[in-house]
Amino acid sequence: MPELRLSIIGVGLLGGSIGLAAKAAGIRCHIRGYGHRPQTLSRALEVGAIDESARSCKEAAREADLVILCTPVGLFRSVMEELADALSPQAIVTDVGSTKRSAVQLAQKLLPDPARFIGSHPMAGSEKRGIEFARADLFHGAQCILTPTGQTAPNALAQVEQFWQKLGMRTLKMSASDHDRLICEVSHLPHVIAAALVHLVSDAALPLSGKGFLDTTRIAGGDGAMWRDILQDNRDNVAASIKRLLARLDEVQKLLDPAQGEALAKWLDDAAARRARLLAEKLPELDT
Amino acid sequence: MPELRLSIIGVGLLGGSIGLAAKAAGIRCHIRGYGHRPQTLSRALEVGAIDESARSCKEAAREADLVILCTPVGLFRSVMEELADALSPQAIVTDVGSTKRSAVQLAQKLLPDPARFIGSHPMAGSEKRGIEFARADLFHGAQCILTPTGQTAPNALAQVEQFWQKLGMRTLKMSASDHDRLICEVSHLPHVIAAALVHLVSDAALPLSGKGFLDTTRIAGGDGAMWRDILQDNRDNVAASIKRLLARLDEVQKLLDPAQGEALAKWLDDAAARRARLLAEKLPELDT
Repeated sequence: MPELRLSIIGVGLLGGSIGLAAKAAGIRCHIRGYGHRPQTLSRALEVGAIDESARSCKEAAREADLVILCTPVGLFRSVMEELADALSPQAIVTDVGSTKRSAVQLAQKLLPDPARFIGSHPMAGSEKRGIEFARADLFHGAQCILTPTGQTAPNALAQVEQFWQKLGMRTLKMSASDHDRLICEVSHLPHVIAAALVHLVSDAALPLSGKGFLDTTRIAGGDGAMWRDILQDNRDNVAASIKRLLARLDEVQKLLDPAQGEALAKWLDDAAARRARLLAEKLPELDT
Repeated sequence: MPELRLSIIGVGLLGGSIGLAAKAAGIRCHIRGYGHRPQTLSRALEVGAIDESARSCKEAAREADLVILCTPVGLFRSVMEELADALSPQAIVTDVGSTKRSAVQLAQKLLPDPARFIGSHPMAGSEKRGIEFARADLFHGAQCILTPTGQTAPNALAQVEQFWQKLGMRTLKMSASDHDRLICEVSHLPHVIAAALVHLVSDAALPLSGKGFLDTTRIAGGDGAMWRDILQDNRDNVAASIKRLLARLDEVQKLLDPAQGEALAKWLDDAAARRARLLAEKLPELDT
């Protein structure tokens, strides 16, 4: 195996963890990183997440075998524009964005060989952000969704898939539009709900909150600009899922009628049972 | 100090934990417990949560100094009816229900001396239920809200307050109606939201969920009948807070407009900052 020339654009929590995880997995690689904040880049060098820092996206991507975009989704357009004429013909490009339709569309429009772009969504991370939280085991046991298109080069897809698998992830494939619709339900909508709940609670009620409230709102702790990008990029799905939530809340309003006691208990028990089944399935994954 | 004759009606997670905690706190007491399931009662005896089991509420309450109602809120009416003529004149009655207006009203209507009833809401517990999860330290560091009325006997209030403090809780006082309004925001509404979210997610999306989704929906794991009682008992506040949530979600729909990018990022950052301040305040409490 020749040494993999890896380029990481954006060395925050995810980018930094990819570098650390690739080294920890024993992948023979030379990692060139780029980040717009010099202190982030030095820190990434210091902790060994990258081997070399570049002064631009272009420089980081030049001669790379695999380029991974780890910036916020909102920067993908400018990053791809900059990369486009620095990529060597064999280069494969992927990303770690939480929305996939726009990444795939931008790649088709801006990259020299869209067949060698594969959208990826490694579902790891937390509400924490930045290279200081990067960890070699961040991806262990997590799922990584890949969103190839009809045009994707099979060998490029296989290489990206193997790369994520070496970092400890299980990969699965679906269309970018299925991805954006399904992830909205389990991630983007919950984020909106958590933030709405934090806003809604009055100052007088806040001190009475306990672990339940803190758990329910944990994901609202994320970075606003990053989540703005995600929610606006996926706004059609977010809007549709908010509508579905409104319908559910309307349903609950009706179940509050004392005559609906049995139906309300069943509605609550059904939710508890569905969550319990999910938790049982997810436990092995969460333990790793 | 004479031995406290304590009566616990309902020996599940909370009732059982009160018994264990009272013993662990070194309170000289004899605990008589009642529960409608014989195996629960034997288990409570076995683990030392009660000293003696009674065959009825009446028998459990007879000659008691302090009677604590630990059944679901929906049973308070029948329990108080049964207790009424078994209580000795000096007996103090309290409860652990998650709603307080109805408990106070029932006490005023049904108990021989409503001045000696004090509504309590020890804010401890979990989505788990039953004597098998009872723990002596369940109340450590938690808050306990007391809801005296203008008629409450000051010495009865002081005794109930001291009892909860000995179990490790910080007590605070407010009206039953303030309690029900404020707790709705930090507990009842989040429960409804969590259950609605579990219902809403499609079968295809569920396997893609991760820790974030499980955290957001953790409280939906509670018992349906118990939560039905709480939500229906507090239905005016629940309905009002759902309306406020609908208004917030409407607000988000507007912020999804790409022209509102800055406003959306600010809305998300404000939520993150408010939650971070709350978490910092709550950390000492959660650690205990």
